Order: sequence, then structure tokens, then C-alpha cells
Amino acid sequence: MLIGRVCRLGAAAGSSCALRPFSSSSVMAKSKFEYVRSFETDDTCLRNCYIVVRLDGRNFHKFAEQHRFAKPNDDRALGLMSRSARSVMEELEDVVVAYGQSDEFSFVFKRTSTWFKRRASKLMTHVASQFSSSYVFYWKEFFGEQPLLYPPGFDGRVVLYPTNRNLRDYLSWRQADCHINNLYNTVFWTLVQKGGLTTTQAEDRLKGTLAADKNEILFSEFDINYNNESALHRKGTALIWEKRDETVNKRVKRPNEEEKEVPVTRSRRTVEAYHCDIIGEQFWEEHPDILEDDC
Amino acid sequence: MLIGRVCRLGAAAGSSCALRPFSSSSVMAKSKFEYVRSFETDDTCLRNCYIVVRLDGRNFHKFAEQHRFAKPNDDRALGLMSRSARSVMEELEDVVVAYGQSDEFSFVFKRTSTWFKRRASKLMTHVASQFSSSYVFYWKEFFGEQPLLYPPGFDGRVVLYPTNRNLRDYLSWRQADCHINNLYNTVFWTLVQKGGLTTTQAEDRLKGTLAADKNEILFSEFDINYNNESALHRKGTALIWEKRDETVNKRVKRPNEEEKEVPVTRSRRTVEAYHCDIIGEQFWEEHPDILEDDC
Amino acid sequence: MLIGRVCRLGAAAGSSCALRPFSSSSVMAKSKFEYVRSFETDDTCLRNCYIVVRLDGRNFHKFAEQHRFAKPNDDRALGLMSRSARSVMEELEDVVVAYGQSDEFSFVFKRTSTWFKRRASKLMTHVASQFSSSYVFYWKEFFGEQPLLYPPGFDGRVVLYPTNRNLRDYLSWRQADCHINNLYNTVFWTLVQKGGLTTTQAEDRLKGTLAADKNEILFSEFDINYNNESALHRKGTALIWEKRDETVNKRVKRPNEEEKEVPVTRSRRTVEAYHCDIIGEQFWEEHPDILEDDC
Amino acid sequence: MLIGRVCRLGAAAGSSCALRPFSSSSVMAKSKFEYVRSFETDDTCLRNCYIVVRLDGRNFHKFAEQHRFAKPNDDRALGLMSRSARSVMEELEDVVVAYGQSDEFSFVFKRTSTWFKRRASKLMTHVASQFSSSYVFYWKEFFGEQPLLYPPGFDGRVVLYPTNRNLRDYLSWRQADCHINNLYNTVFWTLVQKGGLTTTQAEDRLKGTLAADKNEILFSEFDINYNNESALHRKGTALIWEKRDETVNKRVKRPNEEEKEVPVTRSRRTVEAYHCDIIGEQFWEEHPDILEDDC
Repeated sequence: MLIGRVCRLGAAAGSSCALRPFSSSSVMAKSKFEYVRSFETDDTCLRNCYIVVRLDGRNFHKFAEQHRFAKPNDDRALGLMSRSARSVMEELEDVVVAYGQSDEFSFVFKRTSTWFKRRASKLMTHVASQFSSSYVFYWKEFFGEQPLLYPPGFDGRVVLYPTNRNLRDYLSWRQADCHINNLYNTVFWTLVQKGGLTTTQAEDRLKGTLAADKNEILFSEFDINYNNESALHRKGTALIWEKRDETVNKRVKRPNEEEKEVPVTRSRRTVEAYHCDIIGEQFWEEHPDILEDDC
Repeated sequence: MLIGRVCRLGAAAGSSCALRPFSSSSVMAKSKFEYVRSFETDDTCLRNCYIVVRLDGRNFHKFAEQHRFAKPNDDRALGLMSRSARSVMEELEDVVVAYGQSDEFSFVFKRTSTWFKRRASKLMTHVASQFSSSYVFYWKEFFGEQPLLYPPGFDGRVVLYPTNRNLRDYLSWRQADCHINNLYNTVFWTLVQKGGLTTTQAEDRLKGTLAADKNEILFSEFDINYNNESALHRKGTALIWEKRDETVNKRVKRPNEEEKEVPVTRSRRTVEAYHCDIIGEQFWEEHPDILEDDC
Repeated sequence: MLIGRVCRLGAAAGSSCALRPFSSSSVMAKSKFEYVRSFETDDTCLRNCYIVVRLDGRNFHKFAEQHRFAKPNDDRALGLMSRSARSVMEELEDVVVAYGQSDEFSFVFKRTSTWFKRRASKLMTHVASQFSSSYVFYWKEFFGEQPLLYPPGFDGRVVLYPTNRNLRDYLSWRQADCHINNLYNTVFWTLVQKGGLTTTQAEDRLKGTLAADKNEILFSEFDINYNNESALHRKGTALIWEKRDETVNKRVKRPNEEEKEVPVTRSRRTVEAYHCDIIGEQFWEEHPDILEDDC
Repeated sequence: MLIGRVCRLGAAAGSSCALRPFSSSSVMAKSKFEYVRSFETDDTCLRNCYIVVRLDGRNFHKFAEQHRFAKPNDDRALGLMSRSARSVMEELEDVVVAYGQSDEFSFVFKRTSTWFKRRASKLMTHVASQFSSSYVFYWKEFFGEQPLLYPPGFDGRVVLYPTNRNLRDYLSWRQADCHINNLYNTVFWTLVQKGGLTTTQAEDRLKGTLAADKNEILFSEFDINYNNESALHRKGTALIWEKRDETVNKRVKRPNEEEKEVPVTRSRRTVEAYHCDIIGEQFWEEHPDILEDDC
């Protein structure tokens, strides 16, 4: 713990007569200093655009090693990322869809959102803060007794997208990135873990190969059909809000009856996770409420 | 835990012939989508200005109640804030001074910093993230067995200050704010806790009073000299880097000698905490390395 | 004319031996100073949005009086505004529509424009500059021998609109403003010029009146049907690009024939002016090429 | 002149019954459209920084040829630039110094300026507009009967400088640029005009030469001491405000005396031009009022 030092300035401190002058001068001081507020700049996001906040893990390569993440994918780590993202969505309700893969997560605020008056700095810092505190808070749920060695860091950015097409292309871009990286990593670690290659040998083997070549290696040498690999790993995770019927037992006491448990069903908005293609039309047709029309 | 759904799209999945076309089309897709990167805007901070990132707790009034913070100040909570701020400084070395009070903390990057290429969004999100994950990580050090009920949130902002005078006036503004709030809260809770007033009565009693009046109430009614109250509460916490001599015992084995412990002293840069006036000249004269000259 | 002073610094000037050192040191100097370029900030406009630059006359109330503009509308002044706006459109080809009224003009760059790499500062200053130099250059075409007394000033701003709806609402807003002001001014100056009221009396008379009341005054007291007033005044001016067939006589000399004049028709893009409603659908349906689809 | 078209929409126009509904619906319309104002973004310049607006001629290479500017420097064109810059300074009084050379001019607003509430877009468009209209307006004063062929364009930008050092380095950078270009152009055109080289030969001759080499060519081959060349060309033009005593004759009539002319002297702030080194200390020491202290 930090042990702070108390500085005794001048002769004043401790003598009772010093009370009044100091305090009142400070009060005056505050108004004298308040001009510094005018140095703040307005960073309101352009209206009627989707606001995307993307977080990326800081030095997660090293973090993954120090916490012995499984290669090429660690389901505990991916689960914790999604859990933290859900915490963000539950706290900032205007997020209509979030998409994550590896050590990154993107949050999409609806285009008509007025959260934080659309101030970019507030939006992205709150997302970064809520995600990071959740990551530590829920660590145990996913890693059990394996301790978190130090507090991890994420950095973020804000990007605006004026139309549905632009926003979907952004999400497609991230999912295409997921696909390319995961295919590479899957082959790479299969060559190492099952094929007995060193990491250098695996790297050399993959140099210049296309997606088709990588699929071929998996299929012909290891009898692995990449399309049957975990959808979580191939597609990443999309989080959206859905109405769900929820049934809970309530203890009810009616007049002239004994108290009893009654099942009560009500509709609740909850965050649901999907590991599926979000590049094509099907996902968006099945969830027409995520995007608002361009207008 | 989120249990994600796998969407099987079309007839393709599972059939081995579907392997190649899908994958290669995705690769093409990525380049097709990459145009979305050009929607990112450059938010580089003006050079040769101090960059201040200030964090504020989200709904900390409620957070404090739910975690039974002591009134008017909870030393555990203040200690945890400072501990988290130190974690930020150790991670982002260009922070030359940080100042915190209540549920806020300000971080000052040196004017010549090129951290994150001075990109405002990266700077403030990294600070917000590191602070928040640290807050949860170090909770136990300060609150012991009292559990953290949910992951807290902070929001942040960036402000630029072109000159030393402007920066010092910013810090003075925050310390004047600390003074005013703490004086009020000290009297308010003294009236309640020692004077037996209800909170409403205490509020009424303080309506329209000046600093001098508040000091007078403490002094004449409760025999409290406000200037003798805790400097941590009256002045907040300033964190700076200092060179400290550190002596550790090293086991040394010299030829023809038995191994023995030898004290080794070396100079290390560490974050130190001060609870003192930073409005006047003395603090800055005693720590001339914090600020760079205006030029 | 400014007669500038030459400063002779030090002893160097005029002596031939001073030649070399000075010059070479200046060369070095330039690279030493070039760091100041990094203080420029990037103000690229968000992609896929319409970029609107609006100019407003500076102190045009006084300018109008000093140049004896007719009340409530001066057709020479309005013609000069439109002429200057056309000059802007011909110079900056990505302007797809411009709308002007009174002493203001708005220029709309197509959403896919890459003019000046979409840098806001360059776009708005070039528009302001071209418009202003044209205003002086073409003055004589509209005001004949009446001299321009001093160079007028305009200020400008940039606003982005993400969708066709937003852009059309912007243009509707300006035309609604034109309508409201022109109706007021028409009644006001009719009361003064034909009704014999002082300007103060006219002002009082109109206080609190609605549009219907103003129409009624014109109709019942002065037998004026406002809808029959000049469309230029009621609707302002919209400038758009149109393809026009243009026939010119060319002198042609064919073998074994005498040289003769031959009419040659070709299609040319020219700027055309409309004084009509741009709030409703009709104008946009008749000119479907102005706006690009939202996508 | 643009002949605008009147669009008659629907059946309404011309019938007196159409009066009221249309007008009142438009009034409602305006408030309905006003939301578009919220798309404007705040571009307030950071306080306590110098605001520099630099203008550059658009396609002035071609403009210079079409208007037969003398090579390497045309004093009429330079005089017109300065005259236009003076017009800007007289209109925007917070400009404390302006510096120009070739087809560019920089205007420096004092760091405490609140002109246009420090809105960058307003500042730079007003400067660009006033400069451009003045350029056309004063053309005749410098070019006499030689006609201006078309309205010229300038583009602009805003740059902020936090300290006096940064600002002076900016101005030094522009003057060093002036020096380098003018030295090159002087030698180049001397080789062509006096040495009889073609422009290609002159270009080849100068390839790779340093400043010292260029001075040597002028000195040994053409007996020209570059330092004796026109200071206007070598140093460009700095414009500043100065107090000047101005004596005018006023006709005065005192009781019991005949009316007579009396010389009256008063101090007036006027814009003065300097063609001298602004890189070194001397100029700034002699004009201590231009810059405010850093604080």
C-alpha cells in the first residue's frame, strides 16, 4: 500500500488562528481556477451513425503465455471475454450487437443512441472500464483456482458508420479476420502438436499457403475437416438482445388457500450469444430488430 | 456463463466438399471489407501540450452505500483508488503526476509524450481499463473479506493544457474542489454523527454557510480544528515518480570465502504519494522534475 | 500601398564575405523548424456522408444598405450570389447541388467525394475563397456602373449528413427559412412602401402574426396573392448539374469541297438554376441523379 | 447570367385558395427540420494557443503564367498579396502578425483571442473569403489596365501553437522556405535570362547544388551578391500593427478668430510591412508587443 506523506507548508498548520484565512482563500481559488474547464473539447459523435467501440487486449500474447492459455484457442479465455462483453451490454443498454474474437471485442451502439450525449470519450472509456473490471471480477468463474497474476489492460477506439451496409461490412471485416487467423492457427498448432514439427518448421511450412492449401493439410494429413471445428473458434461470438420467456416459481398466498408455489412466465430481454456467420444475409434476416433502417 | 448457439447456415456444413470454396471466398471477403478502416478518424493530441486524463466513478454514490463506505471518508476506498492509480502510472510511464480525491483521479502525461502516438482515444481507454481492472484486482488488499458485489465502472475524458500555468491551475481546481467538498462533508457528518442531527437538519444548518462558518461550527461546537484533520482527506493524493535508494541483501559467494549476505543499494524510480497543498509554489519547487519548461 | 521596411540586421548585410555562412545556416534551419508541421491536425470528413459547406455574408445588413439594395429583395444581389455559386460549382466538380437564399449559399458535395481527400478545412476555405473572389469579379455584370465600395466577407462551416433523408431535411430547413423570412419581409415592406407605415409601425403590426395572418394582410389590404410573387424570392435558388445539348457551328473543310459551316451538337454538363419547391418529392423525382442511394 | 426555372408544382399555384394551407405547413415544417442543426460539430480551438491560418494559392503556377507574372518574382503580385493580407488584418483585429511569401500568407491570431468564439471553421473561412475578395478588389491598384482573367482561388488550414517558441519556429519555417525557394529561383532565372541556358539546362546545372554553390554561381559568373538582392524577395513580408503618429489638418473656428487650418496629431494603429529576418531575436526584441508571454 502507498503510504502518503503529509507536507506541512509554512508555519500555519496546527495553529488555530490559521483556520479561517486559508479555507476562505481556497474557496475563492476554486472560481479562479475554473476557467480550465473551457479547455475541454466537444467530441460528440455525428448523429444518425452507428457508434462502434472496439477494445483490444494490451500485450495479450504475453498475458496468454503467463496464464498458460491453451493453443490455438482457450475456451476459458474466450468465455471470460464474452462474459465481460455481456456485462458491458447490460450496463450500457444502447449496445445492440457486440462481436468478439481472440482478444478483441466490438460494441455497436444504435444509431439513434443519446447515451452520454453521444460523447465519444465517455462512451469508449466507460466501455473499456466496465469490460476490464468485469474481466477481473469474473476471472474465477472461468479459470477457477488458477490465479490472475496481474490486472490486464485493454485499449479502445471509436469508429462511426453512417449506413447499415457500412456497419455490416465492419462486422464482416472482423469475422473475416477471425476466420483467417483461426484457420492459420489451427493448422499451425496441429502441425506442431500432432505433426511433431517445431514452431519454426510449422511457420516455414505455412509460408505462402492459401486458405485452400491450409484446409488441404488439415484434411489429407490429419483427417480434420475444418468446417467441423468449433464454431466458437471459427466464427467468434456475436451477442445480441433477445426476448426470452422465463418461468420462475413464485410463492403465492391467496385468501382461503394455503400458500403455494406457482410458476410465473414473463418475457425478459437477455443477452444471447451466437457463433455463426454474420457476413451473409441469413443472420440479419433472422434478427431484423438489430439494425434500424437507413433514413 | 453464456452458452452460445451454433448456426448451421445452408447445406454446406459438414460435407467435405464444402471446404474449399467457403474458405477462399472469406479471404477475398476480408480485402473487400477492409475499406471500413478508413472511417477511423485521427484524434492525435496537439503536440507540446500536457495531456490530462480524468476518470470519474460511475454511480459511486450507490456503490459506496452498497459497500458500506465510512462517512465522510472511507480510507480503504481512498487507498484502493490510489493503488489503482499507481498501477496506471507503472503501466504508462509517461504519466508524470496523478492527482486523486473522492471517486476521481487525474493522470497527467508529460507534454513531450509520444505514448500511443498521442492518440487521445488510446490514451484514455488504456488508462480507464488499467485503473478499472486494478480496482477489482486490489480490492481484497483494502477490503479484506468484504466482497466486491459487482464490477464497478469509471468514465474518462481527455483535456489538453498548453502551459505549466494552465496545468497547475487544473490541478489547483481539483484540489480546491476536494477542499470544498471535504470541509462540507466533515461538518455535515459531524453534525449528524456527533451532533445528533438528522441529515435533513444538517443540510438545513449548512445552507448558505461560508467556509469560515463551517470551520467555526467544527471549532466552537465540536472542538475540532479542521486543519488538524487527516491530510489525505483535506488535500487528496498526488502521485509522482521519485528516485529512491533501495537496499536489498544479496547472497554473494566470493572465491576463497564463504557465501554471505551483502547489502546492495541501488536507486529505483518509484511512485510516491503526497497529501499536501499543490496549489502553492512549495510543492513544485521541491519537485522541479515534474514539469518541463514552457518552450 | 504598403511600403515595407528593410531591416538590416547586424553587420553582415552588404559585405560579400557574409554570403555563405548565412545561406547555409538557413538551409539547416529549415529542417530544424519542420517539426512544426506535426502540429497540424487531421480533419478528414467521415466517409460516405454528404459534406455541406454553408457560406453566410458577414455584416450584409450594412453591406446591403451601403450598396442601396432594393427592399425586400434585390435581384441584382441575388443574381450575383447565384453567379458566384456557379463559379464554385464549376471549380469544385463534386458539388452535386447548391442552394441559396438571401446572403447565404449551401454547397453539397457528393457522399463519395474524395476532393481534397475530404479534408474539411480545405473544402470550406476553397469554397469560401472561390465564392468571394467571384462575387467581386462578377459584380459589374449585375451592378453595372454602381461601384463596389469594399471587398465583402463571408464565413463558412462544414456539416456532415449521413443519409439522403438528413440531407434533404437540411435543404428543406434552409428553404423553410427562406419562405418564412421572405413572407415576413414582403409584408413588412409592402406595409411600409405601399401602406405608408413607418418601419416601427410595420414591426408592431406584424408582431405575433402567423403565416396565415400575413397572407391575409397581403391579400385583403393590398390585393397581393403571395403565391404569385417571384419564385426566386419565395423559393430561393437551387443549382444542379444538367446535361444539355449544345449546337455550335463549326467551319469544316472536306476534300474537294469548299469550307463551310456545319452545325455540331454535343452534350455538355452545365449548371442550371431552379426556383422551386425542394421540400416535396417532385423535384427529387425529376432529378434522380443528384442523390446517391443510402448504402 | 443564370436564368432560373420556376417549377409549378401540382395544381395549387395561382389559385388564391391555395394561399393559407401551404404557408402554414411550411412554418411547421421549419421546426420539423431544425434537428439537422445538431449535426454541426464544435471545432473550438484549444484555448491559450496561437491560432495560425495559412492560405495557399490554388493552381497559381498556371495563374502566374496566364497573367504573365515576371520571373522569378513579380512585385505587382507580391504587392497585391500584401494588400489583401492587410485587408484581412484590418477586418479581423485579433491578427497580431501575418507573414507572406510567394502565393501563401499566414495569419496569427493572438493566443487569447475570442474572435468567432475561436471556432476554427469560422476563422479560416473568413480569412480565406476576405483575402480572396480583396485580391480581386485591389487587382487594379497593382496591375493597372492588365485585366484579371478569372477569379482566383485560395485554400486554407488552421494550425495551433501552444508556445511562443513553437509559433516563432513556424514563422521561421516559412521564412526558411522563402529563402530556399528564392535563392533557387534567382539562380535558375539568372542562368536562363542572363546566362542563355534553356530551362532544362538550368535545372540540370542546379541539380544537387547546395546554397553555397548557388551563391557562388551568382557571385562569380554574374557578379551578383545575393544578399544585395531585394529584401522583399529574400525575406518575404511580415505585417504587424504599429502605433503611428498621424498629422492631419483640421479646420478650426475659435470664438473671435477666423476659421483656420490647424495641424492635429494623433496616434493611430496601422498595419506596417517589414521585409527582414524574423528567425533571429532582433525583430522580436524590437517589437515586444507582438507575442504574449507563455503562461
